[in-house]
Amino acid sequence: MTQKRIVIIGGSAAGPKTAARARRLDPRARVTLIERGPDLSMASCGYPYYVGGVFDSRNSLIETPTGVPRNPGFFKNAKDIDALINTEVTRIDRAARTVHWKNVLSGEESSLPYDKLMISTGSTPKMPPIEGIHLDGVTTLQSMKDADYLRRVRDEKSVKKAIIIGGGLIGIETAEALQLAGIQITVVEVMDQLLPFLDGQLAKLVENHCRAKGVNVILENGVASFLGENGRLTGVKLASGTELPCELAVVAVGVKPNSALAREAGLTIGETGGIKVNKHMGTSDPDIYAAGDCVEICNCITGAQAYAPMGDLANLQGRVAADNMILGDSVHFSGTINTGICKIFDFAAGATGLTEAAARAAGLDVETVVNASPDKPGFMGAGLLISKMIVERSTGRLLGYQCVGPGDVSKQIAQGAMAIRGQLTVEKMLDLDLPYAPPFSLAIDHFIASVHIMDNKLKGVMRGISTSEVRRMQCSGEKGTWFLDARGPEEFEAMRLGIGEVLIPLGALRRRLGELPEDKDTPIVCFCKISLRGYEAAIILQDAGYTNVRVMEGGIMAWPFPREK
Amino acid sequence: MTQKRIVIIGGSAAGPKTAARARRLDPRARVTLIERGPDLSMASCGYPYYVGGVFDSRNSLIETPTGVPRNPGFFKNAKDIDALINTEVTRIDRAARTVHWKNVLSGEESSLPYDKLMISTGSTPKMPPIEGIHLDGVTTLQSMKDADYLRRVRDEKSVKKAIIIGGGLIGIETAEALQLAGIQITVVEVMDQLLPFLDGQLAKLVENHCRAKGVNVILENGVASFLGENGRLTGVKLASGTELPCELAVVAVGVKPNSALAREAGLTIGETGGIKVNKHMGTSDPDIYAAGDCVEICNCITGAQAYAPMGDLANLQGRVAADNMILGDSVHFSGTINTGICKIFDFAAGATGLTEAAARAAGLDVETVVNASPDKPGFMGAGLLISKMIVERSTGRLLGYQCVGPGDVSKQIAQGAMAIRGQLTVEKMLDLDLPYAPPFSLAIDHFIASVHIMDNKLKGVMRGISTSEVRRMQCSGEKGTWFLDARGPEEFEAMRLGIGEVLIPLGALRRRLGELPEDKDTPIVCFCKISLRGYEAAIILQDAGYTNVRVMEGGIMAWPFPREK
Repeated sequence: MTQKRIVIIGGSAAGPKTAARARRLDPRARVTLIERGPDLSMASCGYPYYVGGVFDSRNSLIETPTGVPRNPGFFKNAKDIDALINTEVTRIDRAARTVHWKNVLSGEESSLPYDKLMISTGSTPKMPPIEGIHLDGVTTLQSMKDADYLRRVRDEKSVKKAIIIGGGLIGIETAEALQLAGIQITVVEVMDQLLPFLDGQLAKLVENHCRAKGVNVILENGVASFLGENGRLTGVKLASGTELPCELAVVAVGVKPNSALAREAGLTIGETGGIKVNKHMGTSDPDIYAAGDCVEICNCITGAQAYAPMGDLANLQGRVAADNMILGDSVHFSGTINTGICKIFDFAAGATGLTEAAARAAGLDVETVVNASPDKPGFMGAGLLISKMIVERSTGRLLGYQCVGPGDVSKQIAQGAMAIRGQLTVEKMLDLDLPYAPPFSLAIDHFIASVHIMDNKLKGVMRGISTSEVRRMQCSGEKGTWFLDARGPEEFEAMRLGIGEVLIPLGALRRRLGELPEDKDTPIVCFCKISLRGYEAAIILQDAGYTNVRVMEGGIMAWPFPREK
Repeated sequence: MTQKRIVIIGGSAAGPKTAARARRLDPRARVTLIERGPDLSMASCGYPYYVGGVFDSRNSLIETPTGVPRNPGFFKNAKDIDALINTEVTRIDRAARTVHWKNVLSGEESSLPYDKLMISTGSTPKMPPIEGIHLDGVTTLQSMKDADYLRRVRDEKSVKKAIIIGGGLIGIETAEALQLAGIQITVVEVMDQLLPFLDGQLAKLVENHCRAKGVNVILENGVASFLGENGRLTGVKLASGTELPCELAVVAVGVKPNSALAREAGLTIGETGGIKVNKHMGTSDPDIYAAGDCVEICNCITGAQAYAPMGDLANLQGRVAADNMILGDSVHFSGTINTGICKIFDFAAGATGLTEAAARAAGLDVETVVNASPDKPGFMGAGLLISKMIVERSTGRLLGYQCVGPGDVSKQIAQGAMAIRGQLTVEKMLDLDLPYAPPFSLAIDHFIASVHIMDNKLKGVMRGISTSEVRRMQCSGEKGTWFLDARGPEEFEAMRLGIGEVLIPLGALRRRLGELPEDKDTPIVCFCKISLRGYEAAIILQDAGYTNVRVMEGGIMAWPFPREK
């Protein structure tokens, strides 16, 4: 039997996973891993936490849990994988089934034949062609080198002010890291919100939390130029004209697939710029597979092609590619449902599936629910969760779920992701049997409570209105809607919206109905802290003949706008 | 329109939920809630945490989150529900559609007509007919009164030693609570393991943790009699003959459904002793519904009737019953998949679906995987998870999932429960898109890693052996199996099983193959700390021609038996 030659280009996530899996499936294969940089299998998602000082050992990023460096010696001894580092593949010769490589340090060049080739060349941070972007002090956070640089900035305490360009996942994680390093942070984002995997209202809650932690956030503004003196960054000039002094700028406006090598080899490239792969992670050449940040994949919900450069997906794709490279095309990769999560100070923010905006853009008829409730009973030291659930109205199938707050967001998003994979509908989720005990959950878990509210909305038992819509009314000076706060007087004294609302505690509402507008068609919006009492108030009013009663979903806890107090 | 009369017997969980939901669906109905005890809607699952001092405010158990006592006044004002407390329903007259009640304090008796009746009479702790069980100092932990008593025991510090009879959920939670109260605890259990929702091996890990926290655990032994002096408990005598001195004993050997009232009214009672209900939560009388701890329900996986007295299910059933009582039978309750979780000191232990034992008893052909891995990267302060996954071999469908350890067990169990509800198979779970970021998860989440191992086992890429089977070999003195520990020498020095294993670090194995037995048919078992290196070692040995190589699943971390060091 001839020895199968497996060559893998790229040593970050998908590549090493493919190599290890291929080795396990075929102990006789010759497996070669080629990496342009000096490190292999770096825990790159951990960079922000190293920079922020969550841990201090740089080695943690490049070692196994038992402290063995993941260098070529480790790959050889533990896995019988030949790993070439500091080695760039310059060309793929598909006809000769050979890759040509060059050692970037020694200049040595050679070639290597393959039977099956894997391209996992990853991605590169987008660097917009802005004046001054090459100044000292402008960086990204994508490589070990970047992490080393920013960690040095932290340790030397030489920087007072930094600007993060981009309010996505990496931008937010970097903002937290540098803020924890004692640096005054401004995040500049061209869109009108942070974290595009969230709809605007939940993103606004995250923004408020960032501000509360001392991070300045500037939305709907971009960087026009980086300002410098003697080659060093001194500030940025925004599109609006404002100049902000800073000694450090981190560009985090997304990444683009490293697909040039594949393109030059004549492989098909997708619309997103990622390498086109089939469900087996195969490219347009039957002997070449691709995985990780360099490919485009399928969105399982819309069926559209998507670019989803996530570390977990890279690993899963690498496993699928290895199976198919060794055993023949037999295993599928389903695609992504865009699940993501990040920690931001005392909050977590996560999402899975489609946002409302994305679902509507895809032409889907959706119903949404915003829900605010603690993750467990108050006496157990609860954390608040504010979530948004999106379902398809005609089928009741779950399309998306987002959650933010200090509570156990991770479990909520995991539940949402599993429900989407299981194609669960509202009807099937009404009586989920989830793990309940006071240290972990409410008797009716937050997720199930959201399903119940959704059921109420779909059946017309409850009509909702978003805080955003109420805010729009407030800002436009639109009159005619009557706002009812159903909390108690002490709660009202401690905190209130101040949108002209009338306080009538739920327990007093039935005997104080006379204080409501005489016209039963008056639009009325009820709420309370989380709008459970608001919901019960709405039912009392509907029963009293009011025809146009809505509940402000999520209540004051989901209100991300300024309050009177 | 005539006002619908809804009467609900029982004011703990299912009852108040039904009452509140019925009120919201029909604001004109007359809703009456009748409770035998003095309290309503108690957070009874919180009792152990009050007893243990996790919180000190008794009111937290009987108040709304904003501090309003859930008394009859609250139910009247906030929900327009008539709540009668200290009131026992003595008889249901189905022909006259009337319930007869008696005030247990005043002795007043009367009756109340209903159009729809709900029975949510809950459960009562089983009290085995053991000599001395009525001594002062023998109690349960099911009522506010019990909680008050045990909290007083805690605060007075009058008890030095207590015995918990029963090692199920309530027993374990009570053991922790009283241990935290400074009392020396012994748990006595008749079965050969704690927590019957776990298979033995995982239960043993929980037992070890209890012991490490100073709790004495006695298995396969029961209480023969309670010993006393002057009416006060002084000790227990075990079935084995041993006498253990103690001043407090908590009986936690399970609960039985309070179905006598239903039985006397001629309603059908199920085999488990719970009231028989259809999928609408309706009893054998079309005007009578039942929910909560007093009913028996369906096990969604086996289809068998089950008794599942859990607070979360009671709430979900109450909602279904209310919908059907008010709107006509239109909503289903699916049943239970036996999801449960509990905190025990620094561990959590949870399960969903069938145990291996239950699945085999149901005649299912199963494959299992035990997996040990951290819940997130080590540099983020990971917690270990040890889990067991059970699937049906022929279909690959997930049947059950258990998890214990200091890590984020709750999310793991939630994922398992959602997967079972979504009827997911191994194939569909190989590439789950779950929320990944270092503060929350590994790039390949523990759950997905278990699926990958399962896939390997089902495809014959890996052969596993349980720690229990290895232990059996060790204890029986069975010779002939060769044990390979694939860790490093420092790890071996710090901790090792001592079952005659040979240490050959994975990285040295290929060049040290000569140290293995000459006979290629020798049974070999490979392992390491979590058996990832053990798995890679097994593949090397198989490639070297060894025909009978197995991996000890979960490695040393899943080994619950005594170690050499």
